[in-house]
Amino acid sequence: MSDLDAAMLDMGRHARAAADALRAATPLARTEALHRLAEGLRAAEADILTANTRDTARARAGGLSEALIDRLALTPARVEGMAVAVETIAAQPDPVGAEMARWTPANGLDIARVRTPIGVLAVIYESRPNVTADGAALCLRSGNAAILRCGSDCLESSRAIAAVVARAVSEAGLPAEAIQLVPVPDREAVGALLSGLNGAIDLIIPRGGKSLVARVQAEAKAPVLGHLEGLCHTYLDAAADLDVARRVTLNAKMRRVSVCGATETLLVDRAAADRLLPAVAADLTAAGCELRGDAEARALVPAIAEASEADWSTEYLAPILSVRVVDGVDGAVDHIRAYGSGHTEAIVTTDETAAERFANGVDSAIVLINASTQFADGGEFGFGGEIGISTSKLHARGPVGAEQLTTYKYVVRGEGQTRP
Amino acid sequence: MSDLDAAMLDMGRHARAAADALRAATPLARTEALHRLAEGLRAAEADILTANTRDTARARAGGLSEALIDRLALTPARVEGMAVAVETIAAQPDPVGAEMARWTPANGLDIARVRTPIGVLAVIYESRPNVTADGAALCLRSGNAAILRCGSDCLESSRAIAAVVARAVSEAGLPAEAIQLVPVPDREAVGALLSGLNGAIDLIIPRGGKSLVARVQAEAKAPVLGHLEGLCHTYLDAAADLDVARRVTLNAKMRRVSVCGATETLLVDRAAADRLLPAVAADLTAAGCELRGDAEARALVPAIAEASEADWSTEYLAPILSVRVVDGVDGAVDHIRAYGSGHTEAIVTTDETAAERFANGVDSAIVLINASTQFADGGEFGFGGEIGISTSKLHARGPVGAEQLTTYKYVVRGEGQTRP
Repeated sequence: MSDLDAAMLDMGRHARAAADALRAATPLARTEALHRLAEGLRAAEADILTANTRDTARARAGGLSEALIDRLALTPARVEGMAVAVETIAAQPDPVGAEMARWTPANGLDIARVRTPIGVLAVIYESRPNVTADGAALCLRSGNAAILRCGSDCLESSRAIAAVVARAVSEAGLPAEAIQLVPVPDREAVGALLSGLNGAIDLIIPRGGKSLVARVQAEAKAPVLGHLEGLCHTYLDAAADLDVARRVTLNAKMRRVSVCGATETLLVDRAAADRLLPAVAADLTAAGCELRGDAEARALVPAIAEASEADWSTEYLAPILSVRVVDGVDGAVDHIRAYGSGHTEAIVTTDETAAERFANGVDSAIVLINASTQFADGGEFGFGGEIGISTSKLHARGPVGAEQLTTYKYVVRGEGQTRP
Repeated sequence: MSDLDAAMLDMGRHARAAADALRAATPLARTEALHRLAEGLRAAEADILTANTRDTARARAGGLSEALIDRLALTPARVEGMAVAVETIAAQPDPVGAEMARWTPANGLDIARVRTPIGVLAVIYESRPNVTADGAALCLRSGNAAILRCGSDCLESSRAIAAVVARAVSEAGLPAEAIQLVPVPDREAVGALLSGLNGAIDLIIPRGGKSLVARVQAEAKAPVLGHLEGLCHTYLDAAADLDVARRVTLNAKMRRVSVCGATETLLVDRAAADRLLPAVAADLTAAGCELRGDAEARALVPAIAEASEADWSTEYLAPILSVRVVDGVDGAVDHIRAYGSGHTEAIVTTDETAAERFANGVDSAIVLINASTQFADGGEFGFGGEIGISTSKLHARGPVGAEQLTTYKYVVRGEGQTRP
């Protein structure tokens, strides 16, 4: 066994022991750790920025694109943003110990379903150093121990932040090893985490681009929560209000084109395509969006380029939108079933029956009625943050906040009952 | 591709189409299908018993043990039992469409978390023909399509029951292929199901012995819900009432020794072992249970044989119990962490603080206080039935009834909101 493998197994053992200690810890101690973490981030601003300067300098010397360097770079405002995010998570209700249901069946037992932490989470992310803080905060809020593995580009920044986390956790009387950062850049560390560290990892959460998520899904020996793609659709129904259709579509595509909740395909009801599409398309074109459509869309709006079959399955993450004319709600649902990724879809309509048919028929984590797909976000859902969005149909679906990082157990109180 | 593989892929495609149709079906249609299934089982009693006679004759000719033949054999009373089980499941509240939560965050969106079916389930079981009826019923109650794969020993009985299921489903206006039985005994069919049938299977549920579950867990390319072992513990605390300790322990071990909720290890608090263990051990011995204990237990009760290290990790499923003296709640929790399977544990105590410490510290699906571990059962929990018990920490934990066979989606209603 390599030294790295041995060190990773040690991290797994320490995480498991910390998870056991966290289960016995009071909610107060975990909340205190979060407040100390927020304060600590502010106090350590200089250290964190110094470390970040080293990361960005190395990244620039290595030829990383300016877009990726921007993702990596921290400023005083971004450090303050991390502290505020941690405070928002601290202010969320504590999910651990919450009674989800309680009842007494015929046998007279008092049965309670109670939320509990999952145990040990592995969070594997790329070059956003803020995940070191908000990932740690979500794991603490949910009572889980965590092993964080950041992209090598942000390792120095993440180590500086992880030092603050460890101090905050210890000062609150929790085991410092509740949240551990893999302190080395070696890629083999990811493989070790994916192996599950001899059963020490209960859940793996990849947060990053498609190649990272695909590797995690393919190799992980422990359950994975995340999403590979956000191939989101906006459908304009015959009964759509034109103003809402224009506003929602423009925002759904162009607010930020690189997020997983950005709309990638616009579906337009044949019955009203001539009323809706020209104005919607003009808005998009004016905002710098390239449109690729089927023959019917192009007949209505000549500026639309020809779409190929591959366009319907492409998550552009760029100012490009595919456009297709469909037969009403059923046509839209059929298209989404065939090409969607189960992430987020929206319908624009004033017809409540059409809205319900769409919401029922589309089997995606999030279905919006008259609102932008870009609302697919734990913060917007009021979760105080998110560690990602799940397109899995098991365990948690949609934005994953602290509550979604819990499981439950049954606590059954009797008075000496035996089973007949 | 073999003919069997092609046929299995066809079943997967049909199941997926049926799942889409089920999502659009009314709750009434699914409830009607369940009532028609219960009636149909009674009406087809003669056909089912004739088919079952062929199964048992073949099994007997093949040298199957009488215990296994008893598991396989149906009687008029057992057919009536199947019908009653289906009626009980029909009487359960419909989980599909239930609003689990609804709130409005600062952005003004109306967010609802709504229960939905998972999609297509594969249920792989052994020689209990009743699973063909109650597995079908639980899948219908939860709005899922299912592919059932029974052990070859009960294939003829299961085909007779599956014909009743298909008729009931069709008569209720649902697609007959909502519930399909693999109609051939070939073992390769299990491999095809475990491959996930090109993504057509959302969840695999193995229901049977350890070798079946181990194979499914090792080979499945889709998520699996189930449990490998039920290595359950009963802990007698210093503050245990002696009568309750005697009654609960005897029931937990001896009511039925072959069920997954049977206690396999008895832990006794050192502080009261001399008060509790002799009488508890005498009851067990009188009931025909062999006891294997550590030195302290043997010093108190000479009739206890010597336990080896392997005994602490053995799920006997037989009238054998391992016995260990431990240091209070913490000693019990440590032992269970080291050797338990996360299924079900019980504490007997009159001390509420000890009970809470135990319930918190033990990370198992079910923790009972002053009640028998044999209550680990969906029927006893009031679920109307169960398709198994999960020791997974993700998705569903403990007994899996219709509600646990659902997932959720978010339905978000707006008035044209865009994200700033």
